[in-house]
Formats: sequence, structure tokens, C-alpha cells
Amino acid sequence: MTRRNAFYAQSGGVTAVINASACGVIEAARSSRSSHNKAAQHQIGKVYAGKNGIIGALREELIDTSKETAKTIAALKHTPSGAFGSCRHKLKSFADNPAEYERLIEVFKAHNIGYFFYNGGGDSADTCLKVSQVSEKLGYPIQAIHIPKTVDNDLPFTDNCPGFGSVAKYVAVSTKEASLDVASMCDTSTKVFILEVMGRHAGWIAAAGGLAADQAGDPPHIILFPEIAFNREKFLRKVDRTVKKNGYCVVVASEGAQYKDGTFIADAGTTDAFGHKQLGGVAPTLAQMVKSELGYKYHWALADYLQRSARHIASATDVAQAYAVGKAAVEYALAGKNAVMVSIERKKAKKYAWKIGETPLVNVANVEKMMPRNFITRDGFGITELAWEYLAPLIQGEDYPPYKNGIPQYAQLKNILVERKLKTRFKV
Amino acid sequence: MTRRNAFYAQSGGVTAVINASACGVIEAARSSRSSHNKAAQHQIGKVYAGKNGIIGALREELIDTSKETAKTIAALKHTPSGAFGSCRHKLKSFADNPAEYERLIEVFKAHNIGYFFYNGGGDSADTCLKVSQVSEKLGYPIQAIHIPKTVDNDLPFTDNCPGFGSVAKYVAVSTKEASLDVASMCDTSTKVFILEVMGRHAGWIAAAGGLAADQAGDPPHIILFPEIAFNREKFLRKVDRTVKKNGYCVVVASEGAQYKDGTFIADAGTTDAFGHKQLGGVAPTLAQMVKSELGYKYHWALADYLQRSARHIASATDVAQAYAVGKAAVEYALAGKNAVMVSIERKKAKKYAWKIGETPLVNVANVEKMMPRNFITRDGFGITELAWEYLAPLIQGEDYPPYKNGIPQYAQLKNILVERKLKTRFKV
Repeated sequence: MTRRNAFYAQSGGVTAVINASACGVIEAARSSRSSHNKAAQHQIGKVYAGKNGIIGALREELIDTSKETAKTIAALKHTPSGAFGSCRHKLKSFADNPAEYERLIEVFKAHNIGYFFYNGGGDSADTCLKVSQVSEKLGYPIQAIHIPKTVDNDLPFTDNCPGFGSVAKYVAVSTKEASLDVASMCDTSTKVFILEVMGRHAGWIAAAGGLAADQAGDPPHIILFPEIAFNREKFLRKVDRTVKKNGYCVVVASEGAQYKDGTFIADAGTTDAFGHKQLGGVAPTLAQMVKSELGYKYHWALADYLQRSARHIASATDVAQAYAVGKAAVEYALAGKNAVMVSIERKKAKKYAWKIGETPLVNVANVEKMMPRNFITRDGFGITELAWEYLAPLIQGEDYPPYKNGIPQYAQLKNILVERKLKTRFKV
Repeated sequence: MTRRNAFYAQSGGVTAVINASACGVIEAARSSRSSHNKAAQHQIGKVYAGKNGIIGALREELIDTSKETAKTIAALKHTPSGAFGSCRHKLKSFADNPAEYERLIEVFKAHNIGYFFYNGGGDSADTCLKVSQVSEKLGYPIQAIHIPKTVDNDLPFTDNCPGFGSVAKYVAVSTKEASLDVASMCDTSTKVFILEVMGRHAGWIAAAGGLAADQAGDPPHIILFPEIAFNREKFLRKVDRTVKKNGYCVVVASEGAQYKDGTFIADAGTTDAFGHKQLGGVAPTLAQMVKSELGYKYHWALADYLQRSARHIASATDVAQAYAVGKAAVEYALAGKNAVMVSIERKKAKKYAWKIGETPLVNVANVEKMMPRNFITRDGFGITELAWEYLAPLIQGEDYPPYKNGIPQYAQLKNILVERKLKTRFKV
């Protein structure tokens, strides 16, 4: 039996630490070859990364990571976004689109790929499971291991998701800083500040804004979660009361915040001069509401990609976990495991501690983990002590990238493609 | 002659480092009392800070900074926003509103205040000058020293303004990080990303986005300055060309970007469902333009207060300069100077170096420094090498605040008010 190669791909929205997982995979694969155990099944040959994710496999566009120096690979640990490119491409079921699966297996066969490492969220857990099933069906052995990644923190069966801790830290720090700004100017200027954050379905990221508060009453005064139906009157009442009491009010709003009937707040039915539906966002819609109903001067910010790419303020805990799940994926594969997701387990201890675990992919695929109701205060506008205990450890520690000329120095890969072996091209 | 007290106030929009200037003032004043020279005119008694800026003087709401420990004052150096509160309140001329000036002098007299340190931008330079003039007119001696502060970097007669370097670093780093995000996803997702930054009149902050580029062709591909008339067709053409060439396009847009006739891009004439004028912002307006004319998927971010409060990513150069101008203000006052602004001078040398200077306030008041045309590329969409040479040193160095539980630990002042001495109240 000869040593088999691995395929690694990044999937879906990128994060500040997904490359740390890539670093974990590649470094573990490299060190498998320098280990004492020289049996082929305990070693991984080359790690090929999909150019732009799974699409790279379908197109036979495989990046040869062996062309990168150890130093460059190490630098991935402090480099945000997807160094090999990512994509939003969900494979259908085998019955609906057998051609895609057959193509994948064909490419894997051509390049002696025996390991499939898929780094993504819920959708990609599903794809990873399907690849494992199809490998069996088509009689070509592939061990498929899912490496969790999502800023949304909505994967089940893992205590948390790599990527989330860093966006949580960004949101907590930004909320703290902007709150100080508003507090210092509120006597004559802005009274209401709204920060819109990501999280279309789950309120984890918005909840992280609550970590900015040292004690009860500190900003943010209001958090809007997708899990809690938005009540316009109740919201405005709370804003008004907060301004009257503190002089100002800071709101952290999830982009997924919605009314009871499921209408997003951002879908305010507004149109622009051309008659297009306004793509506004929650923050400006809320701001307009505050202005027209309460008359307060407002400001709002929309962090968008800044929040998920902010490697400069990454959580050291998150970086360590992202690296660890990548490394563990290789170790699990070499231990013969298949169709599992690497997970993070919180140890039962007073002081936060974690370890790596695993869970069968059949459990994970297409399940979303929402904020539990007891993580949200009774009035629906804040986080509880329980939520704080869960969230706070995930943003612990700073892990600064190196700087040159005042700017972070992020890895620049050569991304050299492996020579094609197949004559057929595949349209994606 | 007895030792006289000082009044210090923060004015206008706050910054990540204005408290570093406060720290410079207070520490220098404290050390004047421990100096060998015991003559009263070489010492400053107490430093009273205006609660919410100059309004605090008018209301006789003076914060006694002597009630704060040395440790707390030192922590101001790494604390963003205005620790004593700031305000937007421009004093009219003496002829138009003598009552305000008479009140100021009355308060200063009651509290034996002989030094007026005003920490702000162009408007406050003007106020500072007026206070100095009125002091003479009313026969109560006050030395008025202006301490420059503005994220906009638009004060004349100083190489740069404290506050700008840090917002510039924030914008450069954020642009770099978000660009990596867009680049990694553009094959199947967002093709155009727009970051809106501050700078209503001058394009300095937007220009700082250009520092994200290592070499020509790197993102940001387009910068929109208030100084360059916006041409819709030219802009769309450049976006389209950039996407076709690189796969994606990153735009940094100043909030003050405007058409030739002076209409702000943000003033798109759009209204919401209630018929209110939409307060949109440049970024969503440009995004909508890109979508409807070119059909590209877009994302946009609006940093708003996050950019000017981002002490976590402050420029070490900026922090050092902000502290130095505060310290120098005290030294200048004790040297008998009056009606001057402390300035930062760039030394003529290959390697960037700076020193503290001064300029008479009559030169400064109400003059705005725009981006010189030769700092902007011929096509109007980028910065030149000359601009890079000017800007790059200002974001050099990192100066991280201390953290606890994953969150920066910022100074928390007691802000104890001095007992009132006047019977009259003054409405502001």
C-alpha cells in the first residue's frame, strides 16, 4: 500500500481563523511523514487544497501545498480569510446529481487522494457526509473528516465553533469602544448608537456584544436576537427609558432580528429613488424608527466583513482551537476514522478548559444550534449570567499577527496548481 | 503670587487618543509641582476638567482630576473617547454673545484658573483664540493653549493631528483584512465590497485605506475622496474593469464624497416607507448603483464610531504624539506662552522623525487642510507615492491596551466635581 494524498477545502463564509485550521492540517500531514512510524497508512503524502473550495476538486484545480515553505504554512495561523479560496456550493443528493459525485471520485482517484478534509459549517458537514457515503457506494475508499468552522457558532455537538470566538471578541471590543464614544458625547450629540452584526438565524454573535459590559446597566443596553420576536413598541420604550436614565443607549442588533411573523426588521418595505427594494440593513431601519418616534440623534455602524476578517483582534483561544481541530482531523484520519466531525469539548471544571472530541457526521448535518432561551434575559434584550459563563472564555487571550509598516503581515501563498491528469473538464 | 489652577476641556468628536493628551496635560501639571523650581509661576495647581467640554466651564461643572490616582491618570493613555465628556458647542464672537465669555471668566476667576487648555479641532482653535482675546479685554489673565485633536487631520500648521494616525491604522488594517475576505470568496459570492469611512470635508481618512496595498494593483482598487468630484460613469467603468481583471473590487469611500455640484453621494434623494429622506450613507448608495448598473453581488460596511474609538488597534506613533502635545501645552503655558497651538513638526530626514512645535492661533482658527492634489493619482481613485510617504509613518507601531477577560481594560474615572463657588447658574 502506498502513501495516499489528502484533499483539503475551505467552504462557505470565511473567518479570521479558518487558515489556522488549514495550518493544523498541513503541519500535521507534514509531520506524519517525519514520524517514526513509517507504515504508509500512518502517513499522508501531499495535501492538495481545493482552489475556491470544493469547486476546485470538481474542476481539478488542486493547489499543491507542498510548494509552500514551512514558514509560509506557519504564517497561515495568523492570516484571516480563506488562503486557498472558498465557495458557496452545496452538493445535491447523489440521486439528484450523481455527476458531481462521480467527478469528485474520479479526481480523487486520479490524484491518489484517500483523505477528504472539509472545513466548513452545517452545509459542508452534510457534503462531507455525502462524500463518505458515495465513496462507499462507488467503491473508492475515502475517509471524510469534517473540520468545523463558522462565525455563526450554530453547529451542534461541539461546545463552540472555531471562527466564532474571534468575531465575538471583535464585537465585544467594538461595542465597548463605541459605547465609550457615545457616552462621552451624549450630552450634546448622539444619544442612540446601533451596531449591526452578523447572524442571520442564531444570535450568538449579537450575544457577544453583551461581553462589553462589566456590570449590570453597562452598555450595550439592548441586544436584538433572531430568537426573540421583535416588538417595536417594547423596543422603543426601552430605548427611551435608557436614554432618560443614562443619557444614551447602545444597541447591538443581529442582522437576523425579525418580527413575530418572520419578517426581518431590515425588510422595512422601503424603496429607493429607482423603485428598488432598499437593502438597508437592520441598523439604519432601527435608527430611522428611533428618530421618527423618539426624536433622538443617532449613529449606526454595520461591521459586515470587518467582523469576520478581523484577525488583528482574534481570540487566542479561538486560534488555538482552530489549529487543534485541523491537526486532529489528520490524526483521526490516520487512526482510520471516517464520517466524523472534529469537535471541541468543554471540560467540567471551574476554570475553563477544553479538549478535542468527535461526533458522527450523521448527527451534525443540517442541524442549527440556536441560543438557548435561558441565555437571554427575561425581557429579551440582554444575556444572562449563564450566557456570560459560556461566552467569556471563548474570547480569552490576544494573538496578535506580526506587523510591518504599521500593517499586519499576512501569509502570501504561491498557490501553484497540480498538473491535471484528467482530459475531461467539468462545468460548475 | 500664588500657584494657579488649569482648566482642560475636550471638544468635538472624540478619538482613540484624546485621553492620551489629557494624560500628558495632567501628568505634566502634576510633575510641575514636584519640580525643583518652586516658584509659583512654574507650577500648576490643580487641573480641572470641563464636564462635557467647555459646557462644563459655563455650568461651573469642573471635574477635579486631583481626586484620581496616578495609576488611573496613566491609564488614560490607553483609553479611547473623552474621559471627561466632550461637546459640540462653538462660542460665538464676543460681540454676539458677551454673556458666555463673561461667564467663563467669572468661573475661571472663582476657581483661580490661569491656564486654559483646549483639546480639539478647528472650531475649538477658534474658541481658544477668543478666550485668550477676551481674557485681555476683561482684564483677567488667562493663558490659552490649543492642543490639536481631530481624526479628520484637517488642521493647518501641524504636520498631522493626533487622533488621525489611529483612525488611519484602523482603516488600513480593516481594508486589508476585508479585502482578503472578498478575494477568497469572489469566485461564487461577493464581487464588490465598499467600506465607508469618515471625513466629511477632507479625504485623509479614506486615503489611509490606500496603505493596505503592498504594491500597485493590490486592493483597495478605488478610493473616493471629497476633494475629487464623483463621476458615476467613470466610477462604474473602473469597478467593472477591476472585477473583470481581478475577480473582485474593493472600494474605500469617504462619507464626504460628492458630485461636481456639491451634492453628497449619500444624498441620493431616496425616501423610506414613511416618506422620510433616507439617511443612507455613501456605501449603500454606491452598492445599489453597482448592483443596478453592473449586476454584481456586493457587500458594504460602515465603520462609523468604531473607527475613531478603536483604541485596540491604535498607532503607537499617534499615542506618543497625542501624549506629547498635551505635555507640551503645560510646558508652553509655564514658559509664559499664550494663544498658540501645539503642533507636530516632521523632521527633514530619511527616516521618519518628529518634534513638537507651536504656531500662533490666529493662523489656525477656521482653516481646513485638504488633501493636496498631488497626493491623489491622476485618475482620482488612488493615492500617490507622495501620499504614501506622508501617511505610512503615522500608523507605525502598535500600542495595545491591557486586557482582562478578553476585553480591553480602560480607565474608569471617578469624575468628582469641584464644589461650586458661584451662586448663579448658567443655561447652555
